Amino acid sequence: MTTTLPPLTTDAASCCSPVTGGVLDVEEAERIAKTFKALGDPTRVRLLSLIAASDGGEACICDLTDPVGLSQPTVSHHMKLLADAGLVTREQRGKWAYYAVIEDALKNAAAALRTR
Amino acid sequence: MTTTLPPLTTDAASCCSPVTGGVLDVEEAERIAKTFKALGDPTRVRLLSLIAASDGGEACICDLTDPVGLSQPTVSHHMKLLADAGLVTREQRGKWAYYAVIEDALKNAAAALRTR
Repeated sequence: MTTTLPPLTTDAASCCSPVTGGVLDVEEAERIAKTFKALGDPTRVRLLSLIAASDGGEACICDLTDPVGLSQPTVSHHMKLLADAGLVTREQRGKWAYYAVIEDALKNAAAALRTR
Repeated sequence: MTTTLPPLTTDAASCCSPVTGGVLDVEEAERIAKTFKALGDPTRVRLLSLIAASDGGEACICDLTDPVGLSQPTVSHHMKLLADAGLVTREQRGKWAYYAVIEDALKNAAAALRTR
């Protein structure tokens, strides 16, 4: 059975238990791992960097396919995984979807890696 | 063909291009993703937290199997992925392997997530 967990959020109560700050329970570990799994693919890392480097910090999916050299369905799949992990917002405008990086989600993921 | 890439290291020249700091080239993205892929599994996240919380910051594999409820071969496999990603050291002492978290590797991974 697959359990859907909420992504790392900006809610201080539910985020940021550091990996090295004590033994994590299963649910905390699953929440942290979900974000890192989304980041654990080179295409998705490049897509995030492309979006962050775009004008206004957002990018149309129509401008993301060429730089990564992949078809639009494949890029859409990667973007869905990033959105499901809470790392990007998605806004439909007419024919195209536009994405922006959620910087707080990156900050929360980094917080999970902080050391003493 | 699979290319083996070096893990994120403490070498300032080869680490820490932030994901949101400009468009990443393929090699940088692969290096960053390799670390996050290793972190993208709840068992491995728990193993890291167990090791970091152990006396002296190191743990025998013989003490890791019970807390995660998995067989030793399975735990060894997860530990190998963490070691290959440069996140833990491994030292064989007689029958058992001992592991310690490489805190600089976590710091470098966090640096890849820093925002402006």
